[in-house]
Amino acid sequence: AMDDAWYLRKVHCLAALTPAAGEELRKRSSVRTHARGETIFAPRRTPEFVFFLEAGLVRVFRASSLGEEITFGFVRPGEVFGEVAVLGEKSRESFAEAARLSRVWRIPRDAFLAAMQAHPSLVLEITKQVHGRLRRVESRVVDLVFRDARTRIARILLELGEDFGTESTDWVSLEISVNQSDLATLVGATRQTVNEALGELKAEDLVTLERGRITLLRPDKLREIASGLPDLPMAAE
Amino acid sequence: AMDDAWYLRKVHCLAALTPAAGEELRKRSSVRTHARGETIFAPRRTPEFVFFLEAGLVRVFRASSLGEEITFGFVRPGEVFGEVAVLGEKSRESFAEAARLSRVWRIPRDAFLAAMQAHPSLVLEITKQVHGRLRRVESRVVDLVFRDARTRIARILLELGEDFGTESTDWVSLEISVNQSDLATLVGATRQTVNEALGELKAEDLVTLERGRITLLRPDKLREIASGLPDLPMAAE
Repeated sequence: AMDDAWYLRKVHCLAALTPAAGEELRKRSSVRTHARGETIFAPRRTPEFVFFLEAGLVRVFRASSLGEEITFGFVRPGEVFGEVAVLGEKSRESFAEAARLSRVWRIPRDAFLAAMQAHPSLVLEITKQVHGRLRRVESRVVDLVFRDARTRIARILLELGEDFGTESTDWVSLEISVNQSDLATLVGATRQTVNEALGELKAEDLVTLERGRITLLRPDKLREIASGLPDLPMAAE
Repeated sequence: AMDDAWYLRKVHCLAALTPAAGEELRKRSSVRTHARGETIFAPRRTPEFVFFLEAGLVRVFRASSLGEEITFGFVRPGEVFGEVAVLGEKSRESFAEAARLSRVWRIPRDAFLAAMQAHPSLVLEITKQVHGRLRRVESRVVDLVFRDARTRIARILLELGEDFGTESTDWVSLEISVNQSDLATLVGATRQTVNEALGELKAEDLVTLERGRITLLRPDKLREIASGLPDLPMAAE
């Protein structure tokens, strides 16, 4: 049982449960492994599952009717995801896919609600997690309205650096593979715009890109760009 | 005591408390009345209060360094607000101001956390409220990236109609005063763009504007515009 409960030591959300309650929740879940790129959930009118990421990395996004995507963010191990629709008793509008090989619990709605009822501290953990996401998405709105694409790219690179960076004295290497299309869906810009902005940042020796691995060479300078005044007071139409 | 507890009958969040607990929380709070336009809170490094709207209407927004605003949404009576910063133990980045005469409880952080500890159902109510806000803000991101200003205006008008509309057979009158600048901060467009788009909608007999009061004349047609395909696959830079 100790071996089975290893995940409880590093998670945020389910750490609020007792080991026995965590084990019980896992028994009531179907645990699946998803290869990189595999869809974990898609929009659905009456979602029946809440998801828990045991290991790996998950991207949450929406798609337009034309197939373009906007990425809200990444779920890290120990986080519950897809719970918004279940808690709010509304339809699910987002997609989730494995950004790398991921191990995911598919928790039945009832089992999850029962665990929340029995463990108030779980609710508090999830509330904190959701508040963190709300702040991030609010900043995304502010960035889209007030900041140009170059600034938005600098900001997202620093955000990714905070979440997934290996820091050295004067550079940050992103422990997550993001290409230019990924960046485009994160900042809400065209691939062309991202390509040009990244080219500039490379020419200024602020970043390097090698096989999907981005390194921030001078985070201090990037932070300056990220906090810079927008070129335009409001977004161009 | 019954008179004092009238608010418990119509609220969402504090309805999860017993009347006695609600009364206790109010006693520990300072209750203030804010005139329309008055600031209730501003960005702050270490926020010490959570707010509860007993009566009135509150606008939550952020401002750029140039003073331009983006409105995240409106708080309605019975909702807790400004709790994100307190729960997440982070700085507060938003502003809140009274959109009309409002009666607001200023709840000390400790008292609020104690109430959450003692009343798990309060945490659940707040979680649901925050999830609702997260969904709204996520949709705002999608709209900013995928939809043009005219579509965004149609969508926000319908959203305001849902939240604050008095419905007749074939029109919806907004019970909230919004002028063109307000709309601009809600959709992230310039006042000029909003002015042109509203002019179009008026010319098509879809809305009327009289002294800050907007009426949606043909919600069905507005819904068609709101769900329409974007002119551009991604936002113009």
